[in-house]
Amino acid sequence: MDSFDTPRKLAAEFLGTAFLLATVIGSGIMAETLSPSNTGVALLANMAATGAILMVLILIFGPISGAHFNPAVTLAFLIRKEIKPGLAITYFVVQVLAAIAGAIVAHIMFGSPLLEASTHVRTGPAQWIAEIVATFGLLATIFGCVRFRVSAVPYAVGLYISAAYWFTSSTSFANPAVTIARSFTDTFSGIRPDDMPAFIAAQLIGAVLATVIFGWLLNPKGKA
Amino acid sequence: MDSFDTPRKLAAEFLGTAFLLATVIGSGIMAETLSPSNTGVALLANMAATGAILMVLILIFGPISGAHFNPAVTLAFLIRKEIKPGLAITYFVVQVLAAIAGAIVAHIMFGSPLLEASTHVRTGPAQWIAEIVATFGLLATIFGCVRFRVSAVPYAVGLYISAAYWFTSSTSFANPAVTIARSFTDTFSGIRPDDMPAFIAAQLIGAVLATVIFGWLLNPKGKA
Amino acid sequence: MDSFDTPRKLAAEFLGTAFLLATVIGSGIMAETLSPSNTGVALLANMAATGAILMVLILIFGPISGAHFNPAVTLAFLIRKEIKPGLAITYFVVQVLAAIAGAIVAHIMFGSPLLEASTHVRTGPAQWIAEIVATFGLLATIFGCVRFRVSAVPYAVGLYISAAYWFTSSTSFANPAVTIARSFTDTFSGIRPDDMPAFIAAQLIGAVLATVIFGWLLNPKGKA
Amino acid sequence: MDSFDTPRKLAAEFLGTAFLLATVIGSGIMAETLSPSNTGVALLANMAATGAILMVLILIFGPISGAHFNPAVTLAFLIRKEIKPGLAITYFVVQVLAAIAGAIVAHIMFGSPLLEASTHVRTGPAQWIAEIVATFGLLATIFGCVRFRVSAVPYAVGLYISAAYWFTSSTSFANPAVTIARSFTDTFSGIRPDDMPAFIAAQLIGAVLATVIFGWLLNPKGKA
Repeated sequence: MDSFDTPRKLAAEFLGTAFLLATVIGSGIMAETLSPSNTGVALLANMAATGAILMVLILIFGPISGAHFNPAVTLAFLIRKEIKPGLAITYFVVQVLAAIAGAIVAHIMFGSPLLEASTHVRTGPAQWIAEIVATFGLLATIFGCVRFRVSAVPYAVGLYISAAYWFTSSTSFANPAVTIARSFTDTFSGIRPDDMPAFIAAQLIGAVLATVIFGWLLNPKGKA
Repeated sequence: MDSFDTPRKLAAEFLGTAFLLATVIGSGIMAETLSPSNTGVALLANMAATGAILMVLILIFGPISGAHFNPAVTLAFLIRKEIKPGLAITYFVVQVLAAIAGAIVAHIMFGSPLLEASTHVRTGPAQWIAEIVATFGLLATIFGCVRFRVSAVPYAVGLYISAAYWFTSSTSFANPAVTIARSFTDTFSGIRPDDMPAFIAAQLIGAVLATVIFGWLLNPKGKA
Repeated sequence: MDSFDTPRKLAAEFLGTAFLLATVIGSGIMAETLSPSNTGVALLANMAATGAILMVLILIFGPISGAHFNPAVTLAFLIRKEIKPGLAITYFVVQVLAAIAGAIVAHIMFGSPLLEASTHVRTGPAQWIAEIVATFGLLATIFGCVRFRVSAVPYAVGLYISAAYWFTSSTSFANPAVTIARSFTDTFSGIRPDDMPAFIAAQLIGAVLATVIFGWLLNPKGKA
Repeated sequence: MDSFDTPRKLAAEFLGTAFLLATVIGSGIMAETLSPSNTGVALLANMAATGAILMVLILIFGPISGAHFNPAVTLAFLIRKEIKPGLAITYFVVQVLAAIAGAIVAHIMFGSPLLEASTHVRTGPAQWIAEIVATFGLLATIFGCVRFRVSAVPYAVGLYISAAYWFTSSTSFANPAVTIARSFTDTFSGIRPDDMPAFIAAQLIGAVLATVIFGWLLNPKGKA
């Protein structure tokens, strides 16, 4: 990773996060348009597109920036001292800006307003707990594969998020930058701005929990 | 595998089995909610989520505990003397407790009662034979890949269960711990408690049959 | 492959072919039952189950018998002199018997008559050409991957058949043993016995064409 | 790649591009026939078939011809001086002829007229921008995987196009040869001949942009 300089790392985080959001929001618009009366089919399509693009983006950008695309992931690596605080902060900023840029690109591709506030209500303890579980599982996936089979990370993350779209009542945002950007789209994948802070708090709780538990689990006594 | 101590092995079995059940039951609830009148779409979603999470969980926890998540699998390795009886018994206990915990997590994430008895009837010789076939095939998948291409186990198991959701009339439980936990959910993926014992008996028959047949098939004369 | 004796090779062909047919027919019955009015969803499910089980079965049985499961594949290897005539003939017999056994298992699992003649009409030049194309492509997939990346064969074959379910008007049988067995099921995946011979003839034409063309294509001058 | 002579390279480009188009158009016809009132299901099927066959075709033909199947890809490698101008021009010609041949094969397999002008309107700035984004992403996928994990190219390209079917308003043609051939089919996947030139122009813009940006991104200072 160190062979790439900071501008290239930030460009990789920007391109990856923007493409991720363009896919989440764009495929949501397409799915809702084609299957307005069958939300199950729409979520299948939204899931397939999101899972597939995550695999691709981590394959492309992983060796450059680590392919975080997600402040919760960057936070976890910061806690583990595997990224320097200065770089982590620039990652946070770039991830949020890129996510919003990706939302704009999706809206342009579908002829919608560039940005608009979502009216999609997503709230309540059940969904907050779902976001804790979803983000815990995402970090578990990353930590486990990085430890045992690093070449599987792109596929594992894409598969995990595909599953989490369905097993959580929140459809698994699991990413603060994604959550912010999705508050700017009044379409299938949106979230009302008022509902955003609790989602982000839950995601950070899940990330910290996973960092602590897997810090113990993956390091048997007497091993580094 | 031996570099991880027993507490970590049990934690891995617990986390993996709980996540598996949270996914099976959670995605069933989500699918039923989004596609109430199209059971085919609902089972596609349930299948996609279950197959994907199995791949992920075996990637994460396989190197720690072997990623059994299933008393029928542990039984097969016990017959083959690849796990000690004491550890196998603790695996059984942890798998069942974790499966029930996963059901509770799914119910919390969707705002349902923590546990409730299922009313979903699943019975009759056709489904019992289906469970024998389903579990036989699961063990065949594991034995075959462990013998020839161990790195493919996570993907092969996820793919096998995805197929088995559709080719069996029972939707392929193939796992006594999963069967017990699914008797505690009155949703898409549930099974009536009265129907549980026959399913579990069938699963154990399938596991033993596979252990015997593949014990012969995979070991050509004069080879270890 | 040679480390396994003939009984084990034949057992592997039998188990693999039987599981393949149980999946094709069983998932067809399940899909038709769950989505009677939405054939697109039913074929998606049938495709997903078939593609997934093919990957699994080739992973398990490939190292034992070569995982042909298909007289057209065995014929192609016979033309290339990569299987002895005597063994090829026993493969043909076992594949057909196993395919019928798999159909019976599917019917038992769904409580249907053990065997019955199909009434599903599949005929006409368009579908015959489709079977030539489908089988040509299947052999192309096998020859290409065996030549360049043998570890990809299980995945490539599963992916190829998944695509071919949709791009051919016949839904791509591409296998004489499968065709015979599917004439014995009066369900989603059946084919009327009268329509069977033309399908099988088309499949053999496709297999021979692929063997000739890829024999030239994959062997540059001056190379073995 | 150099061990294969020009006739074999051209044959590989021809067979691969023809199979790709037969799949895109054929699966579109099948999907539209089976799910006429549920376009979401039809696009899911069209996506699954296209993504799967791309993985297979790149596995088979990649080592022979590079498996471009796409003038925009050949153009990008020409700009990077990784293919000679003479060979690139023959690739362009073969790709277009093969794409049309593939359309004819699809039509024969479904008993449609060999070729007919499409009436499917696909136009407007939103879709043109979508084609720029789609082709940019396709080249990004290829450049990134070729640089970091060349064995993942077949899977990454198939996954990328699967996602792009849904996240672009144009369903991501991203290929001038495909665009020309799809103007000759008046089915699900067609495009009106009048709408073709703008799509192709957008694709070439996307390809050039990706070549420039990834030329910078993937080459850290002081490295070749």
